[in-house]
Amino acid sequence: MLTGKNLVAGEWRGAEGTFAAVAAASGAALEPAFAEASSADVADACAAAAAAQPVFADLPLAQRAAFLRAVADRIDALGDTLTQRAMLESGLPEARLNGERGRTVGQLRLFADEVENGAWQGLRIDHAIRDRTPPKPDLRMRKIPLGPVAVFGASNFPLAFSVAGGDTASALAAGCCVVVKGHPAHPGTSELVAEAIHAAVLEAGLPAGVFSLLNGTDYALGETLVKDPRITAVGFTGSRAGGLALMEHAAARPVPIPVYAEMSSINPVVLMPSRMAEAAEELAAAYVGSLSLGAGQFCTNPGIVLAIESEATTRFIAAVGDALPGIPAQTMLTQGIQTAFVKGAAAIGEQPGAELVGTGAAGAGPCGQAQVYTVSGTDFRDNPALAHEVFGPSSIIVVCADLYQVAGILAAMEGQLTATLHMASADYPAARELLPILEQRAGRIIANAWPTGVEVTHAMVHGGPFPATSDGRSTSVGTLAIDRFLRPVSYQDLPATLLPKALLDGHSSVLRRIDGQFEA
Amino acid sequence: MLTGKNLVAGEWRGAEGTFAAVAAASGAALEPAFAEASSADVADACAAAAAAQPVFADLPLAQRAAFLRAVADRIDALGDTLTQRAMLESGLPEARLNGERGRTVGQLRLFADEVENGAWQGLRIDHAIRDRTPPKPDLRMRKIPLGPVAVFGASNFPLAFSVAGGDTASALAAGCCVVVKGHPAHPGTSELVAEAIHAAVLEAGLPAGVFSLLNGTDYALGETLVKDPRITAVGFTGSRAGGLALMEHAAARPVPIPVYAEMSSINPVVLMPSRMAEAAEELAAAYVGSLSLGAGQFCTNPGIVLAIESEATTRFIAAVGDALPGIPAQTMLTQGIQTAFVKGAAAIGEQPGAELVGTGAAGAGPCGQAQVYTVSGTDFRDNPALAHEVFGPSSIIVVCADLYQVAGILAAMEGQLTATLHMASADYPAARELLPILEQRAGRIIANAWPTGVEVTHAMVHGGPFPATSDGRSTSVGTLAIDRFLRPVSYQDLPATLLPKALLDGHSSVLRRIDGQFEA
Repeated sequence: MLTGKNLVAGEWRGAEGTFAAVAAASGAALEPAFAEASSADVADACAAAAAAQPVFADLPLAQRAAFLRAVADRIDALGDTLTQRAMLESGLPEARLNGERGRTVGQLRLFADEVENGAWQGLRIDHAIRDRTPPKPDLRMRKIPLGPVAVFGASNFPLAFSVAGGDTASALAAGCCVVVKGHPAHPGTSELVAEAIHAAVLEAGLPAGVFSLLNGTDYALGETLVKDPRITAVGFTGSRAGGLALMEHAAARPVPIPVYAEMSSINPVVLMPSRMAEAAEELAAAYVGSLSLGAGQFCTNPGIVLAIESEATTRFIAAVGDALPGIPAQTMLTQGIQTAFVKGAAAIGEQPGAELVGTGAAGAGPCGQAQVYTVSGTDFRDNPALAHEVFGPSSIIVVCADLYQVAGILAAMEGQLTATLHMASADYPAARELLPILEQRAGRIIANAWPTGVEVTHAMVHGGPFPATSDGRSTSVGTLAIDRFLRPVSYQDLPATLLPKALLDGHSSVLRRIDGQFEA
Repeated sequence: MLTGKNLVAGEWRGAEGTFAAVAAASGAALEPAFAEASSADVADACAAAAAAQPVFADLPLAQRAAFLRAVADRIDALGDTLTQRAMLESGLPEARLNGERGRTVGQLRLFADEVENGAWQGLRIDHAIRDRTPPKPDLRMRKIPLGPVAVFGASNFPLAFSVAGGDTASALAAGCCVVVKGHPAHPGTSELVAEAIHAAVLEAGLPAGVFSLLNGTDYALGETLVKDPRITAVGFTGSRAGGLALMEHAAARPVPIPVYAEMSSINPVVLMPSRMAEAAEELAAAYVGSLSLGAGQFCTNPGIVLAIESEATTRFIAAVGDALPGIPAQTMLTQGIQTAFVKGAAAIGEQPGAELVGTGAAGAGPCGQAQVYTVSGTDFRDNPALAHEVFGPSSIIVVCADLYQVAGILAAMEGQLTATLHMASADYPAARELLPILEQRAGRIIANAWPTGVEVTHAMVHGGPFPATSDGRSTSVGTLAIDRFLRPVSYQDLPATLLPKALLDGHSSVLRRIDGQFEA
C-alpha cells in the first residue's frame, strides 16, 4: 500500500525510488523503494506552506483543536498496520510501539485541549488613559504563529518524535504549517502517518500546504529545507553533529531563524550515600533496567552514575555486574547507530582507569549489548572523553571520593536534559547543596526515579542548557512546547472592529491579563 | 565628582583615562578622561557576576523588588546632576532628559511590581497519579534566571536604554546579574547611574558582583564580554552592523547564547485614502513633528510613509513641504551619527525617482536637518536602497498607484518594530486586508497615531521580526521583556522540603497552573 513518494502539499510525488527502508533486525531492504525529495519538492512544499499559513493561522481555535484530534483519530485507526511497519523498520518491539502510538495520539489530543484553553496566546489588554499627559494609548497583545516550521523526524521514536510527534503537534497547535523531513530509517512509517495527517487536513477543509512530508538520505535536503526563506523555525531531535549543522544553516540565512534542536545528554544520576547504604541492590536492579531499556536508545538514558566510595557502593557495583548478564541484547534502530555504539562503548573501555563492570548477553545481528564501566571521580573529572554521550545501552559508574567531588563534577558538566538524585531523608541536607548546581546544568531534576520516561504534561521540561538543546529556554515535550512557535504582536488603538476577537473587551473564557490583573 | 573609572564588582578601576566624553553640541572634550576597560576587567566582572548569581537568584522576590525600587530612588535623587551631564554628552534637551529619567525610574518600579506579581515564573504543578499504569510522577515547573547578562547601552536613550534601562531592569527583575558595556557617547552619565545601582546593591546587602559597568571605545571590548563563558545572554540596542556582530560572536561561542538585539527599522506608515482625503494637512503636521522629534533619533522614527496617488496626497506633500522649514535643526547625539545621517539622507536623494519635498531649517554644528523625499511606489519597490534605515530626521513619502501596490510593498519589507495605519472608518475594509501582512512584518501595529512613543506597560511589544530585532519572539520594552532572561526547569517527585517554596501545594497569591487549571 506504500507509494514510496513524497507528500508535497497534497500531491504524492517522486517518479522513481532511490533509497530503501531497511529491516533493522535483518538488514534486508524493504519494499517499496523511496524517492529522494528534490530541491523543487522542498521549494514547492515551502511555498504551499507559506500560502496556507494565513488560512491555517486564522482557523478558529475550536476547529484547530478538532483538526488535531482528527489527526490523532486517523493515526489510531492505522492500528496494527502502523505497528507492524514501524517494528520492521525500527526493530523496536510491538508493545513499545503500541505504547508509543498511544503517546503520540495522547500528545495530539493534549495539544488540542491546549489550543482550546487559549492561555498560550498570552493575551494582554492595557486600557487607554486619555487624560494622562502624555495620553496613554490602548494596547493589546497576543501571540501569533511564527509561520511555516521545518520538523526533522528522529530515529529513536518513529512515532512520538517523528512525523506527527511533539514538534509537529506543538507547531500545528501554535497555528504553524509544517514541512517534515522524514527520518530515512523509517520512511514507510512516515508515509503512513503523513497520509493520516493529510486526510485530516482535507477533512478540515484546509489547504493541503498545511502539511508536507519530504523523504531523503542526503544531508543537503535538510540544509535546503532550513535555508528556504519561507521556513520560520526548525524542530529537531537527533545527534549533536546534526543539530549543530542545522544551527549553523539557520544562523547563516539572510534572515536567521530559531532552531529547537534536542541533541545530546548523559543525564547524570547521583546515588546519595544514605540511600546507597539502604538500597544498593535495589538501585542496581533499577539502574540496569533503565540503562538497557529500549536498547538504551533514549535521550534521557542514564549515561553517568555518580556514587561515593563506600562498602555500599562496592555492593552496588557488584550487583550491577551480577545483573548485566541477564539483560538480553536488543536490536538497535539502524546499523549505523549500532556501529557507533560499539565504537563508543569500546572507547570508554580504553580510557585511563576505566574498568569493565560487566556486559549484557551477546546477540546476533545489529544488537546493542549492555555495557557498564566504572572509573574514579578523579579519572572522570580529568578526562572529557568520558563525558561524551554514547547512544545505546552503556553507562559509567563514577566512584567519587566525597560529595565535594560529586559537586565539582556536576558543576563542570555540559548542559543536560535531566539530573537525578536518589536520596534517603538523611541525604536531604547534602541534596539541598547540590540542587542549585543541578538547576544550572539541567532542564529536569528527578528524585528517586530514573530519567527514562518523559511524561507529556503541563509541567514537563524536556530541554536544558546547550548542548542538551540548542535553546535552553524551551521544552520539546509538554504543553509549554507550543511557546517555541509563537511571537508577540501588540495592537495600539486599533478600532474594535479590526481587533482580533480574543482581544475585545468583555467576557472571555480565556485567561487574559487586563491592566495588569489576570482574569478568566 | 566623576572618576572616569570602570566599576568592576564594586571596585572603581582604571589607572589612566584613555578616552574622553565629547560635548555633543560643541565637540569639545569633557573632563575627566575615561579608562578603557581591560580584558582583565571583563573577566573579573563576569567572574564576580557568576559568583553573585546564586545569591541574587535566591533573594526573596519582595527583596528583589525593593532593590529595584532603591535603584529607581537613587536615580531620582541624582536629579539635575544627571540631567546636566546627559545634556552635555548627548545634546538632548533638558525636558526630554527629565522625561527620560522619569521613564527610566518608572520602568524600574514597574519591573519591581512585576517581580512581586510573580506570574512570570510560569509556575505549573501536575500532581502524581500513582495508580496509573505506568504511574504518573509529580511534576512542578518554574522559570529560573539564565545567569549573568551582558547589556550594551544605547546612544539614543542615555538613560532609558542605557545603564539602568529596559534591558538592565528586566534582567535584574529576572534575577540575573548584569555587566553593562557603557556607550562611549555618554560615559559620565553612565558612571552616575552605575554609582546609583552600586549603592543600591550594597544597601540591599547583595554581593557587589550583581552589577558592573565597563567603559570603552574599542569594539573588541564588546566581543570579549559576549564571549566570556560566564555570560548567558546579551541585550543590545543599536545599529544593525553592531547587532549582527554580537549575534555572530554569540553563535561562535563553544556554548552559544541568546542575543536580544534591537537593530533597524523604518516603521512604515500607511495613510489610507479616506483618512488622507479628510485630513491631509493635519496628517502632514503630525508627520513632520514625528519624524523630527528628538532629531529623528528613535528606533520607531517613521522612515517610510505610504500613500495613494490622489489630489489629497498632493495636498499632503505640499503641506509637508510647507511645514519643514519651520523645523529647527537639532544637535545630534554624536558627530559619527550626524555624519552618517548626512550621508544617508543624501544617498536617498540620489536614487532614481527621488524628489526632495523639503528640508528643515539648517543649523550650526553637528545638527540633523530634517529632510523628506518622495518617490513613486514602483521606484520604491524596485530599489532596496530606499528601504535602508537612515538614523535621523529623514523620511520618504512613497506615492503608490493603489492599495495593491501598498500591500505588495509591505509584504516585501524586512521585519519592522512598528507598522502604522491612519484610517477613517471607510478605510476599515481595506485595512482588514492589510492587517495580516502587517502582523507578519511588525511587532506593533498602530492605528491613527505615530510610531514614536513607546509606552512601558504590559501589552507593549517593542520588537519584531529580523532585522528589527535579532529575535522576534521577544520584546525589549514592557513587562514581557523579563521572559527573555528566563528558562524553565522541571522538578520530578522532589520532596516538599527540597522544592522551591513557590511550588509547594497550598494557597499561593501567585498565578499558577495546577493540573492544567490556572489558580491564584
